[in-house]
Amino acid sequence: MNTGRVTTARRGRPGYDLESLLAVAVTVFNERGYEATTMEDLSRRLGITKSAIYHHVTGKDELLRLAVDRALDGLFEAADEAAATGGRAIDRLEQLVRRSVHVLVERMPFVTLLLRVRGNTEVERRALAHRRRFDQMVGALVRQAEAEGDVRPDVDPAVAARMLFGLVNSLTEWYRPRGGLDADALADTVCVLAFQGLRRSPPATR
Amino acid sequence: MNTGRVTTARRGRPGYDLESLLAVAVTVFNERGYEATTMEDLSRRLGITKSAIYHHVTGKDELLRLAVDRALDGLFEAADEAAATGGRAIDRLEQLVRRSVHVLVERMPFVTLLLRVRGNTEVERRALAHRRRFDQMVGALVRQAEAEGDVRPDVDPAVAARMLFGLVNSLTEWYRPRGGLDADALADTVCVLAFQGLRRSPPATR
Repeated sequence: MNTGRVTTARRGRPGYDLESLLAVAVTVFNERGYEATTMEDLSRRLGITKSAIYHHVTGKDELLRLAVDRALDGLFEAADEAAATGGRAIDRLEQLVRRSVHVLVERMPFVTLLLRVRGNTEVERRALAHRRRFDQMVGALVRQAEAEGDVRPDVDPAVAARMLFGLVNSLTEWYRPRGGLDADALADTVCVLAFQGLRRSPPATR
Repeated sequence: MNTGRVTTARRGRPGYDLESLLAVAVTVFNERGYEATTMEDLSRRLGITKSAIYHHVTGKDELLRLAVDRALDGLFEAADEAAATGGRAIDRLEQLVRRSVHVLVERMPFVTLLLRVRGNTEVERRALAHRRRFDQMVGALVRQAEAEGDVRPDVDPAVAARMLFGLVNSLTEWYRPRGGLDADALADTVCVLAFQGLRRSPPATR
């Protein structure tokens, strides 16, 4: 099983490189849950011995750290890009949402794993702390957009920030990249829904 | 542990009634995962023997069925209410979203469990089938609203339906009823965000 992967990852000797090993590990973590997965499970699924896994990583913990960093790096790069564009906060916020949808599509298994982290180990607590820092940045952007008069007055900025990324994160539950809807179209729809709303006419003019 | 619960549920003899037993079981399922939870785990957490649990239910499966039905019944009642009001589809859709937020707040642990069901047993497959039926009703409402000219033309109805309930379901990730934001305010914010959008002015008039 997974022999196709082994072949493409081969570097002169049978086995996995770190990248393909990580991809399989993340799939297993997402299927069974990180906590419930043992090195034995990984070894079986990869078709290699545990010591062959330890050739690449120090253990399950390091695989998790590499995986959630893949997701977090993408999200923080998106935030840096949005911050660098300047302009009104509401536009930077919309750009951040749009870029985050792309990160989610491109790194779906890593983001899915990140969203399931619950904080039982040092690596998990660190990931949760990074997620909180990201959420705080989003919250600050919404507050700034509100201060600039660009957010509906009947919306609490903290709640709106939670909901925006609740919407983005919920894409991991149903979106599959091969479904005919590409990342651009998906990001457009998220932004239309969240920033302009589903209704054609704003209620004030109805 | 959980002795407060035991006391309030007491009906002349020490122990749980079905309702309080179900509440504890759902908490454990949500903490550990349904599959990973054994009757032994439930017995330990409840502080009663397994045979005392079997006095109320035939097994883990029946606890799951009772729990997800609690969530599904609420959602289908919300759908029936929305259908009964008549009027434009976009307004019925908004009412359905609003009522669903209330169901989610009132039955949070049950809805959380429902959303995690993966389909490995008959009870789970049945729950997933019901969820699909609910999603199809939402999809049909969005399509009807689009046919009535009330949905932005740049939004795909099927994708919008997924996103609307992705947003609603994501509330289980962060909303806690004691947080100062009541169910009405939460439902209002979801509806403003999803139907009118976060931006104060529609882009056409900017």
